[in-house]
Amino acid sequence: MRVEILCTGDEILTGKTVNTNYSHIARRLVDVGLGVHWGTTVGDDRESLLQAFRQAGERADAVIVNGGLGPTVDDLSQEVAAQAAGVELELSDYWLKRMEESYARRGRAMPPNNRKQALLPANAEFIDNPIGTACGFAVTIGKARFFFTPGVPREMRRMLDEQVLPRLLALGGIKGVSRLKRFHTFGIGESRADQMLGDMPAFQNGGGIKLGFQAHYPQLETKLALSGEDDGDLAARLAPVEAEVRRRLGNFIIAEDDQTLEGVILGKLLERGASLATAEMFTGGHLAARLAPLAGAEKVFRRGLVARHAGELDASGVNPDAAAAAAQTLRERSGASHALVVLIDLDEDAGASTDRPDFGGTICIGLADAGGAIARQARLLGGRDWVRIGATELGLDCLRRHLLGLPVDERIDFERR
Amino acid sequence: MRVEILCTGDEILTGKTVNTNYSHIARRLVDVGLGVHWGTTVGDDRESLLQAFRQAGERADAVIVNGGLGPTVDDLSQEVAAQAAGVELELSDYWLKRMEESYARRGRAMPPNNRKQALLPANAEFIDNPIGTACGFAVTIGKARFFFTPGVPREMRRMLDEQVLPRLLALGGIKGVSRLKRFHTFGIGESRADQMLGDMPAFQNGGGIKLGFQAHYPQLETKLALSGEDDGDLAARLAPVEAEVRRRLGNFIIAEDDQTLEGVILGKLLERGASLATAEMFTGGHLAARLAPLAGAEKVFRRGLVARHAGELDASGVNPDAAAAAAQTLRERSGASHALVVLIDLDEDAGASTDRPDFGGTICIGLADAGGAIARQARLLGGRDWVRIGATELGLDCLRRHLLGLPVDERIDFERR
Repeated sequence: MRVEILCTGDEILTGKTVNTNYSHIARRLVDVGLGVHWGTTVGDDRESLLQAFRQAGERADAVIVNGGLGPTVDDLSQEVAAQAAGVELELSDYWLKRMEESYARRGRAMPPNNRKQALLPANAEFIDNPIGTACGFAVTIGKARFFFTPGVPREMRRMLDEQVLPRLLALGGIKGVSRLKRFHTFGIGESRADQMLGDMPAFQNGGGIKLGFQAHYPQLETKLALSGEDDGDLAARLAPVEAEVRRRLGNFIIAEDDQTLEGVILGKLLERGASLATAEMFTGGHLAARLAPLAGAEKVFRRGLVARHAGELDASGVNPDAAAAAAQTLRERSGASHALVVLIDLDEDAGASTDRPDFGGTICIGLADAGGAIARQARLLGGRDWVRIGATELGLDCLRRHLLGLPVDERIDFERR
Repeated sequence: MRVEILCTGDEILTGKTVNTNYSHIARRLVDVGLGVHWGTTVGDDRESLLQAFRQAGERADAVIVNGGLGPTVDDLSQEVAAQAAGVELELSDYWLKRMEESYARRGRAMPPNNRKQALLPANAEFIDNPIGTACGFAVTIGKARFFFTPGVPREMRRMLDEQVLPRLLALGGIKGVSRLKRFHTFGIGESRADQMLGDMPAFQNGGGIKLGFQAHYPQLETKLALSGEDDGDLAARLAPVEAEVRRRLGNFIIAEDDQTLEGVILGKLLERGASLATAEMFTGGHLAARLAPLAGAEKVFRRGLVARHAGELDASGVNPDAAAAAAQTLRERSGASHALVVLIDLDEDAGASTDRPDFGGTICIGLADAGGAIARQARLLGGRDWVRIGATELGLDCLRRHLLGLPVDERIDFERR
């Protein structure tokens, strides 16, 4: 089955907004084994939209359209879809009522221009948007089935997974089931991960499992994609391969599937009835921001300190001893069972540059618990933002490793010594 | 003149790489007043490339092609360009020599597969790549002139500015200039902004200025796009419209153009030689994370506290009086001239849900400076993440309003009372 993605909107067309909706939709299509064959971007312009719908309708079997379902006059997707499908627009009483109720629940009257969002091409298949006012729908144009989704990312993502992908799989006559097993690692780059796993028989031609990587610095996602007859079949084939991947990637695996590094840490702390205090320099709250907002963190996260100077964090300088001592002090003052301190000594010529691959900093991490305090030092390069992101991850990973009884000073690929 | 962008490569098509080359090229086209009319993405596939070249050749006057000029077998741009233009590939002795010399300078022999990069469509116009081995070129396909650029971003960017854009401007016989004026607001939704501005004569057909909106919750970007003969002409036409938009959007404007809310706050604090301490609940460091990492913040940002319980922030509860008192205490303890405290009382049934539109919280903001302490209370709905994002923005906006002498308790659209 040939699937295309069609993104609409002047913001996307003119590059003011980087098109991350496109890459999200494309990755999900690849994940479920459908793939993507063509991408089109057009603006909020009737003529271009009509031409794009017609051309995609000639080339493809299915098209996912993103954007243009909003309440303003430049949102044209429903109108042009109706024109291309050769039908009229009809008011959906159901959707109008849903919108009015949604506004009423929030104690507001629906603005009159939202009414436009309830106009759908006649006989369109309704695709529910449980979290927004832009109604999704499907129509046939040419030889392709078109699925219309809103441009708001969280609405699009939920509708894609819950409603559009199942319809696409049914349309493609794909009966079996597919599965995507994901490992998240910190500390190894894509080429090294490929070297560590690439020779496994399951990943060769005919091995039945597709190996893929997705780098989101500083994490790397390793994906195993497979499809089969039923869940039992998938589980039986996946189990030994999963175990081998776990063995090979070892301590670098910070989380699997929908887990996050911060979620794993929180889980471990909750399990032990432990509590945590953090202190950070330059990472500017990013460490606390990963942990503190999590559901359940109110039982664990005691206190976070953010500063630009080591002295504000009770550290006598930026070195391993100072970091360990600051963690001890923080633990005592906060009354938390665990304390994590991340200090940074940035290179002199930091300036305002955010894109200097040769610019870096020295990170000193201190960890304290009832057993005492330890420290870890590392030098990271790659410019201001990369050092900050890397330092945050390194701090969290040290805590994870310490909680799991793993070595905290295993060398990572991003590190210079 | 109608200009299109055509991006090639499986990495881009499948979403593995987010297409920032597209947005860069599009923004540069808009910057120079050409605009962009259509975007196409295809993979490393002969048939798709040929079809994409031919379709763009029918629609456009000029096409910028990005990618597919590398040395490997999946790089097909030259070959398919020759086919679409109806010519043969010819070896460019000049480019072959340039590549060999470039390798020789680095003390290496040119790998044999790089020879492929010197094969260009017969009679193609040569477009120099001063910093790489992928040779650019231009050919005519259908009624459009096609400009081929490499996928390596720094090579593409330099060739675009130095060689492709001047050729495009000459081709379009364009002398004029264009401008995009942007206003960033917090507190009004897209529909309301449309109601506030939509009736201005400048934005009607023939009014000469295009009005557009981009919502990045909780901020809204309002854009005025126009083109004209020269900068003086643009400035003269824009000035009265800008002033009227500023008047209508009023206190809700948090920043303009490339400014950010946090940058405006930092600027105001720096201007006065002031310093800042923050304390936040549930926003989990996001407030500190917006301010502390900024260049220059080391002179202003004294200390940030992050906690999940009001008591850890020296607040006796979550109410306006407690927030004001906590801000006073924070100001005294930290020695900062200004203190900002954001407290939240979350709805009981928070649970782990991140996506409950009817779930919310009550935000209490306390602000203290030499003149005393004030407080602001607001109720936000929209699920855990939205409440957190909204509370962070509300806290920062209160500080901005206070620093500018504006009312801090003007009702915002996201607020329920």
